[in-house]
Amino acid sequence: MLKDWRRSERPEDEELEKRLEDLRGRLAAKQNQVKEHKLPVLVVLEGWGAAGKGSVLGKVIRNIDPRFFKVATMSVETEEEKRKPFLYRHFVKIPEAGKYMFLDGSWMDEVTGEYLHGELSGEEYRKRLSSIRMFERQLTDNGYLVMKFFFHIDEKEQKKRIDTLLEDKNTKWRVSQSDLWQNKHYDKCLEVYDNYLRETNQSQAPWYIIDAKNKKWAETQLLDILVNGIDTALSNGAVAVPILQNMFPLRKTPKLAEISLKDKCLTEEEYHRELDKCQKKLAKLHNELYRKRIPVIIAYEGWDAAGKGGNIKRITGALDPRGYEVHPIASPEPHEKARHYLWRFWTRLPKTGHIAIFDRTWYGRVMVERLEGFCSENDWQRAYNEINEFEKELTNWGAIVIKFWVQIDKDVQLERFTDRQNTPEKQWKITDEDWRNREKWDLYETAVDEMLQKTNTTTAPWYVLESNDKKYARIKALKILIEEIEKRL
Amino acid sequence: MLKDWRRSERPEDEELEKRLEDLRGRLAAKQNQVKEHKLPVLVVLEGWGAAGKGSVLGKVIRNIDPRFFKVATMSVETEEEKRKPFLYRHFVKIPEAGKYMFLDGSWMDEVTGEYLHGELSGEEYRKRLSSIRMFERQLTDNGYLVMKFFFHIDEKEQKKRIDTLLEDKNTKWRVSQSDLWQNKHYDKCLEVYDNYLRETNQSQAPWYIIDAKNKKWAETQLLDILVNGIDTALSNGAVAVPILQNMFPLRKTPKLAEISLKDKCLTEEEYHRELDKCQKKLAKLHNELYRKRIPVIIAYEGWDAAGKGGNIKRITGALDPRGYEVHPIASPEPHEKARHYLWRFWTRLPKTGHIAIFDRTWYGRVMVERLEGFCSENDWQRAYNEINEFEKELTNWGAIVIKFWVQIDKDVQLERFTDRQNTPEKQWKITDEDWRNREKWDLYETAVDEMLQKTNTTTAPWYVLESNDKKYARIKALKILIEEIEKRL
Repeated sequence: MLKDWRRSERPEDEELEKRLEDLRGRLAAKQNQVKEHKLPVLVVLEGWGAAGKGSVLGKVIRNIDPRFFKVATMSVETEEEKRKPFLYRHFVKIPEAGKYMFLDGSWMDEVTGEYLHGELSGEEYRKRLSSIRMFERQLTDNGYLVMKFFFHIDEKEQKKRIDTLLEDKNTKWRVSQSDLWQNKHYDKCLEVYDNYLRETNQSQAPWYIIDAKNKKWAETQLLDILVNGIDTALSNGAVAVPILQNMFPLRKTPKLAEISLKDKCLTEEEYHRELDKCQKKLAKLHNELYRKRIPVIIAYEGWDAAGKGGNIKRITGALDPRGYEVHPIASPEPHEKARHYLWRFWTRLPKTGHIAIFDRTWYGRVMVERLEGFCSENDWQRAYNEINEFEKELTNWGAIVIKFWVQIDKDVQLERFTDRQNTPEKQWKITDEDWRNREKWDLYETAVDEMLQKTNTTTAPWYVLESNDKKYARIKALKILIEEIEKRL
Repeated sequence: MLKDWRRSERPEDEELEKRLEDLRGRLAAKQNQVKEHKLPVLVVLEGWGAAGKGSVLGKVIRNIDPRFFKVATMSVETEEEKRKPFLYRHFVKIPEAGKYMFLDGSWMDEVTGEYLHGELSGEEYRKRLSSIRMFERQLTDNGYLVMKFFFHIDEKEQKKRIDTLLEDKNTKWRVSQSDLWQNKHYDKCLEVYDNYLRETNQSQAPWYIIDAKNKKWAETQLLDILVNGIDTALSNGAVAVPILQNMFPLRKTPKLAEISLKDKCLTEEEYHRELDKCQKKLAKLHNELYRKRIPVIIAYEGWDAAGKGGNIKRITGALDPRGYEVHPIASPEPHEKARHYLWRFWTRLPKTGHIAIFDRTWYGRVMVERLEGFCSENDWQRAYNEINEFEKELTNWGAIVIKFWVQIDKDVQLERFTDRQNTPEKQWKITDEDWRNREKWDLYETAVDEMLQKTNTTTAPWYVLESNDKKYARIKALKILIEEIEKRL
């Protein structure tokens, strides 16, 4: 794309000024519509060093109320970020519905830079590209407007600008080592950038190349494309998008009704003996995980009153408190609801070497959100693949991902509900909603069966914990966890 | 994609049978909705030889009324097709709104085959891929549902099937040379197919890989994806899609108002002398074009009564009737309107060595269709790029593409209209619509200026023919044509 790009005629100064004024006004006028339609707008600015994206960006945002946009500049990864999956620091920056996020440099900057400097092999680089395509597609599929701009100048122009900046001691600092390197290896960079743009030029999130030789002209082009892109997005309501094929190898999964809960129980004595043994083992393994910097993500789902909380406690009981977090997941806060549904899980990922336990998870999308109509059918249908993709990012990063379905039968639930109701110190644990959900048992069961079937991947498998006897379920969870960790170490 | 594809569990026979029955019923039930929503459905079946796409296809179409679908099988290119652009024989097969087209083999089959057999260089192959991405995107952007399936079996399974077919003299004929070659070079083919699928896996027209080891299971997978794809498409109304950047180098274009019509005239004597000279020259060049098999496409647009017809006559007057066609373009017929707006131009392309003259053209999309509201704003905004892409396919194929805008001023139009009205033998040439269009002169002028500006590419340029004096315009057209042809020869 970059290589066969050719400059189009720039309008005369007077005409340009007129168009620029007009476009600035149009962008300003869009603000309320963007807000009302709850459109999240992600604007990515990439380009050659010294191409002027920063200064154009500075002009563009003057037309938007500061309450409605944020700007983030690509910076060196922090130690914290280095211990998260590659997409982490990008995913967490996505805008809220009705707001803009402008990124001065992005994942393109990062991965092409690493590839050019030999920090990523060809194979790793191609893997990154496919993660990036997935990431951008997940955003646009979920209603995000993603506008990607590349500020283009030729080698000579870049050299001239760098030299001018260097000559003045007040601007000298603005020339980075990377700019100098880029100019010296312009052709090599061009090749890589061209390839990157082609590989990530998706029909719903295409690249726009900005002729950046003249700043006003660059601003005009960007505003023109941005304003039109917003118009196009606003003219659509919720759009259903193709459901992609699940390309992940799946394990065979029994239906919930086929799972026997009988005889899945332990005596007090068996339980305490096993518990003690398992916890000691897990404590040791936790240390090893920490030293080897392997992250672990444990997801708990299950019926109300199935015993998730108690189960989790028996795991954390074995762990060093500095090395794990438990995330109880309730309905999303407004700032979470305003973003891609996986955002609140991306932001809660553990660092390498840490364990994160989720008490309820991203699977809410295909259970409660599906059944309560909090998202469209297209949304939850699409979610199986999106979730598999999310978990694949985690396992590719090196994480151990384990998912527990805590299973009880309907009678046991009734017993436990009644017990909660009748025991003063347990009453806080039972709400009207629990009873309402219970009425929808069959609907949930269908949804859970479909969920287990479609997301039981070989890399992030589901395990059913038979929990009519909580002791049995706790020991089973510990043993699976131990086994999965030992497999990895 | 193919290389890391792994088989998912197939349901038990009984369960499979139940799902298959259900899906067949669902597809049958879709027919009326597809028709009412005027959804055009293009189903592409690709895969390994002997993977059974033909027999699965045979079963799938049993659920649809024959009036609502067509099936086309990839065949060897005819002599006629060989003399058209590579996309020609594929573009002409796209379905009508509300109908299905099933393709047993497609452009994938063609280009991967040619590439594997060394008939396409790596560079030519990549060009084809980018044409294919453009083609499929133009379809989905214009409301087509494009479903692409790849029937996958492994090397051993393919060998087994081929051997079984060969053993029986009744089925022996079904094994093609290409099937044998494919099996012998399975790994090499896998590599190329895998790459092809990845390169053309667009978010709006993704690939679906069908596990084709078991026929009923293959049919079930295909029906499931197809039915869901149709559901998704039906749930959307008209969707606005991103306007892509015009990546084509453009020539600077004056506005119509800046074009002087004064002094652009010839005396009768000059005219006849020039006409004679030009026509003789053109006749000679036409011969040469024919021998060198260079196709020429001449597009005429202009104001009503500007003199397009007479201008065209002076060109055809010089040509051998066996080597050109004139296509007068009126409003589209129902079967044309039911397809992508460029379809009726793809079907009218000349063979190599021939000249096609279009009296009015595909630019109707950004003039009359824009101004009369026959298409949405998103449609005509998108059309500039789509048209540039279309013309680029033509010039890449080797065609000379010349576009004439026949220009007169408003007074001259009035004179000619009045003259037509008052001259009995010319009255057929003037209608109420012409007068209505005249009232919209200013709106048209804005649209034409935008059109000229956005589609005046260096490879398919616009030329303005000043036609207040028709003689001047005719000679100018001839001279431009001669010059452009001479440049190429």
